[in-house]
Amino acid sequence: MAPLKSWLQIDPKSHFSIHNIPFGVISTSANSEPHPAIAIGDYALDLLVFTQENGFKALSAIQPHQAVFSQSTLNPFAALGRPVHKIVREYLQSVFLENGPFPEVLEKNEQLQKKALIPVGQYKTHLPMRINDYTDFYAGLNHAYNVGVLFRGPANALQPNYKHLPVGYHGRAGSVVVSDTPIRRPNGQILTNPTADPKVPIFSACKKLDIELELGCFVTKDSALGQPVGIKDAPQHLFGVVLMNDWSARDIQAWEYVPLGPFNSKNFGTTISAWVVLMDALEPFAIDGLKNDTSLLPYLDEKDRKSHYAIDLEVKLQTASGKTSTISKTSAKNLLFSFPQMLAHHTVGGCPFSVGDLMGSGTISGESKAEKGCLLEQTDNGKTEIELESGEKRKFLEDGDVVTITGVCGGEDGAYVGFGECVGRIEPALHFDA
Amino acid sequence: MAPLKSWLQIDPKSHFSIHNIPFGVISTSANSEPHPAIAIGDYALDLLVFTQENGFKALSAIQPHQAVFSQSTLNPFAALGRPVHKIVREYLQSVFLENGPFPEVLEKNEQLQKKALIPVGQYKTHLPMRINDYTDFYAGLNHAYNVGVLFRGPANALQPNYKHLPVGYHGRAGSVVVSDTPIRRPNGQILTNPTADPKVPIFSACKKLDIELELGCFVTKDSALGQPVGIKDAPQHLFGVVLMNDWSARDIQAWEYVPLGPFNSKNFGTTISAWVVLMDALEPFAIDGLKNDTSLLPYLDEKDRKSHYAIDLEVKLQTASGKTSTISKTSAKNLLFSFPQMLAHHTVGGCPFSVGDLMGSGTISGESKAEKGCLLEQTDNGKTEIELESGEKRKFLEDGDVVTITGVCGGEDGAYVGFGECVGRIEPALHFDA
Repeated sequence: MAPLKSWLQIDPKSHFSIHNIPFGVISTSANSEPHPAIAIGDYALDLLVFTQENGFKALSAIQPHQAVFSQSTLNPFAALGRPVHKIVREYLQSVFLENGPFPEVLEKNEQLQKKALIPVGQYKTHLPMRINDYTDFYAGLNHAYNVGVLFRGPANALQPNYKHLPVGYHGRAGSVVVSDTPIRRPNGQILTNPTADPKVPIFSACKKLDIELELGCFVTKDSALGQPVGIKDAPQHLFGVVLMNDWSARDIQAWEYVPLGPFNSKNFGTTISAWVVLMDALEPFAIDGLKNDTSLLPYLDEKDRKSHYAIDLEVKLQTASGKTSTISKTSAKNLLFSFPQMLAHHTVGGCPFSVGDLMGSGTISGESKAEKGCLLEQTDNGKTEIELESGEKRKFLEDGDVVTITGVCGGEDGAYVGFGECVGRIEPALHFDA
Repeated sequence: MAPLKSWLQIDPKSHFSIHNIPFGVISTSANSEPHPAIAIGDYALDLLVFTQENGFKALSAIQPHQAVFSQSTLNPFAALGRPVHKIVREYLQSVFLENGPFPEVLEKNEQLQKKALIPVGQYKTHLPMRINDYTDFYAGLNHAYNVGVLFRGPANALQPNYKHLPVGYHGRAGSVVVSDTPIRRPNGQILTNPTADPKVPIFSACKKLDIELELGCFVTKDSALGQPVGIKDAPQHLFGVVLMNDWSARDIQAWEYVPLGPFNSKNFGTTISAWVVLMDALEPFAIDGLKNDTSLLPYLDEKDRKSHYAIDLEVKLQTASGKTSTISKTSAKNLLFSFPQMLAHHTVGGCPFSVGDLMGSGTISGESKAEKGCLLEQTDNGKTEIELESGEKRKFLEDGDVVTITGVCGGEDGAYVGFGECVGRIEPALHFDA
């Protein structure tokens, strides 16, 4: 498709082209209370100001609901449902369109531009949603296989259930933070001599701090206890997608995780990108995920619907030296189960959902080393080192390291639909005095 | 101690003696919006009405905070902290005390009695707290041992980490429901032939639906990301305790739980009792838990503080025949780790907490068969049957079964501190058409 053109000057490489219109929550010098916005080029459009100044005057359908843009999270907007998201997003696109239908709203309204278009650097982003529950899946087939090989060898790499259902676990909703929140290296119990008998842990700062490259997807509809969401209806229950870094303490995890799964090794922080890319914005980039050679039960059968997205993902590491290296490049196609399948599985026994609940995809890895989405895989659990472009080396993250995940769809200049950045800087562990 | 006497007629066997004063959330015919109350004898004292009618006039310390009693959950009251809970509870005790200091508040105020003292049956209880995050631990040593024997034999029954840290997993906050909420039998993937190769699951209603007898404890203080709660401070972070039934689908669990832990086998419903018994009310019944023969790291060392409670627990099962049998009797002393230890461990790596977050103890079992807190243990995973007092038999729960957990401290007539009931009735699985 030929890219749409905006009257606003937007860098043709911007993630936030007029094709995107992602939603987030910002605060500004004029209003320190978090409130909704969209990202467009190098600006945020402050939706609270835009609403107060009657920016939605040409969109009668949203007028009874305009209070959603004076809230501190996107949950009330999300709760309006996908048909409303679609008309709001398309209206905002039309407001920015060159020779668009509503020039008087913003293009010819310099006063409103001055008040509502906030340049990058002059706003702060906040967690976009109130997250009631957060679930992390494990749908990255290559990741699951690689990790399985590390711990159980190639013959038993994947557990027998792996291809039959999207394996997942409940995460800690309260420790999901927005991009740019510092991440403190956790303390905890680790085994320094795993072959000793008996095994006796020590108290230590994590020595194997890792990243996990993931996508997150927010839910936009409540579903009641005891009421499954069918696979056909599931897409209407999805609000939008963010990048996610599921920071992981591999040494704490190795000791704690039997028999009930990861706990303190994951709950010290999970970073998401600030701007929620709506499902409708991703739709042009829908593709198949990885082929599942296992026959699925009907409640998971999408019947050839394309529910994955061609998102190019990249992980960069900046060390204390200030130099930045790319440490992973992969694609979001590397998932065995889609978000609709995850939701259908999650609710099949009656688990309820609330607007704002978050599902993580699991670590996304391609097949080659350069496509692996965590250091555990890249360094064989610290047995080898990766060499950074700067010449420095890493087994796991060091204090002061800054990890940046980016993700973007599309290749034509001016038509990118991207996620911006998901950034976290590692702070030294707390000196702990029990 | 000699029991305190109230001017209100209270059955000497009541769980809600003047020694207790548990807090909950009710709605009434006069006010259908959920609002706070306490339970006393066969009544709820409606705290919204009590506040509106100036019932706290003799307690100046609470006056700036009275809005907490017009909220739909106890979170704002909990957030005031334990010193405030203590004075409010003691004030309410004094209001009900025979020959107490404030007879004009309620005892001599028949009009307020009529408006604010709501008899059992004339109010409905609601979930007492807004639960942001819910964690379930596994601190019942006998349970963990018994289950370990079932699946791994006696030599490896307990995992190497078990006595070093309170093992736990994140649960689904959104599926925690208040007593008397019906529980629908979940559908899901189960293996009918676990020894087949390859293993192929079927879609089925759960055939091994089980209970788990637990305590839950609510947190009363926020703690920030990256900020551990020390073991010394942890008790001040606890609000109160409830009974909990962590319904479990054993067949779904067996297939899904590797490698990330229980998921759909637990998230279809977790029932808690309606009245939160404050930590101060439990303090007279503080005892040691089970002795841990493993030396703990300092961050978990309570230094001989008694942080467990002598709560007599009982599970009753009423079948469709209408007959009720006791299926388990045990004590809350059967825990290896206390709630302060759970909180200290949970936060040691920096996991944040919010007021209203819930921690479950894990299944509480004694050593003998009659003291086992779930059917998995009692029937060796369905290999044997238990005989009910009615002559009926059970391996696992059947549709229409009603499970009631009770818990009570104290033995002197008129001085009981109890939890009331935690009740759930099993409804048939949904007919599922994918």
